[in-house]
Amino acid sequence: MFDHINVVLIATTHSGNIGAAARAMKTMGLSRLTLVNPKTFPSEEATARASGAQDILENARVVTSLDQALFDSEVVFGASARLRNLSCPCIPPREYAEKIIHEHTGRNIALLFGRESSGLTNEELDRCHYLVNIQTTEDFYSLNIAAAVQVLSYELRSSFLYAQQHNIKDSNKLDITTESDEALASGKSMQHFYQSLESLMVEVEYLDPKNPRFLMRRLHNIFNRIRLTQSEINILLGILAAIKKYLSHK
Amino acid sequence: MFDHINVVLIATTHSGNIGAAARAMKTMGLSRLTLVNPKTFPSEEATARASGAQDILENARVVTSLDQALFDSEVVFGASARLRNLSCPCIPPREYAEKIIHEHTGRNIALLFGRESSGLTNEELDRCHYLVNIQTTEDFYSLNIAAAVQVLSYELRSSFLYAQQHNIKDSNKLDITTESDEALASGKSMQHFYQSLESLMVEVEYLDPKNPRFLMRRLHNIFNRIRLTQSEINILLGILAAIKKYLSHK
Repeated sequence: MFDHINVVLIATTHSGNIGAAARAMKTMGLSRLTLVNPKTFPSEEATARASGAQDILENARVVTSLDQALFDSEVVFGASARLRNLSCPCIPPREYAEKIIHEHTGRNIALLFGRESSGLTNEELDRCHYLVNIQTTEDFYSLNIAAAVQVLSYELRSSFLYAQQHNIKDSNKLDITTESDEALASGKSMQHFYQSLESLMVEVEYLDPKNPRFLMRRLHNIFNRIRLTQSEINILLGILAAIKKYLSHK
Repeated sequence: MFDHINVVLIATTHSGNIGAAARAMKTMGLSRLTLVNPKTFPSEEATARASGAQDILENARVVTSLDQALFDSEVVFGASARLRNLSCPCIPPREYAEKIIHEHTGRNIALLFGRESSGLTNEELDRCHYLVNIQTTEDFYSLNIAAAVQVLSYELRSSFLYAQQHNIKDSNKLDITTESDEALASGKSMQHFYQSLESLMVEVEYLDPKNPRFLMRRLHNIFNRIRLTQSEINILLGILAAIKKYLSHK
């Protein structure tokens, strides 16, 4: 049911949290776990806290970069305990669940969870199409990482059962009517696009390679927001390639 | 905001779970914790896992019976990972949150969480007006106790914010129009009532004191379902007292 949902834990420090996250996922029917540079894995502590969800740990992918984690992801949600002042839309968990169920039905989804101490970096936030804000109280937003996985897994299952029970049709809830059923651009394609674009801008001296950040962030915000399909990104990549080829012959 | 919500953990075995539950509560604005016969408390493990929610542990009430825990509770919700075949209504978390926010506004609420290994006993279930079923997958319902506290705390806060945002008025959502604003019978009053009723039934030989369970469960189901007000329970208690007084003089 939720095989297309990829839970991605980034640089998790406490290995117990990895086990607790696996257990949280399994109770709600999620099974696909990716670990980006975990401090320790596998570990006894993770296995103990998984408490019967050992299969999820055994099948977890362990990778060394976010690019590898998101290679086939079409839509990326990042968990954020605080509201961020960004142009990437920040939505509550119920809306995130409805988006996955009704708007992005069947698409490859990634849920990003950041470090225990500091959450997601700006570079990681740039990969997100949405931020999901689990609204804690203002004076205590220290949500445990496995507890956040539990809440977002729960909300997904709960909203799915609710929609099933209330017979909500996919078509009734689509709020972006122009979007086709075509596959969206994968994370790998989008990275390829951003890298091509960046190198091109450097080459044409539009972008200072010593300080590329601000402009690249703005561009991420723009292109992530429009959620390009695979054929659309192929067109853009084709344009970039054509420009580069032309420049090399100049 | 949620000061009238009492989280009651019964006979918790792993002290880390107590700390994690306190942390889960605090992120969502709950503060009132009652521990019934915890195996170990206070403990280093609980403090470590509370991670900044130490104030909730310090203010926790530690009691030796459910009667003490529920002494002032007007409405009792019991967390249940599985659907139970009981006449006590079994509802999903979203409905539980809506009941607390719209139907029982401001009333003293207790949320019961049972043992890690075996959940709530039949006697404890009898004290519940509702069971809240966090719908796990059928083949893996091993929800960690602190994760369950997180889900129910989250759902309460989330539904509250949702109602606030959508300006849902209390009056629009009341589905039991006959219920007044009067205080409901406290847990203490209800226990007094059941004990008086039971002893009376034994006295009149309607109930076999060696095997009272089945009949008493049925009675709990009946009287818990109608949610008596304090003045109504006083009337019933008055009737029982009058009968007993009469019998003693006979």
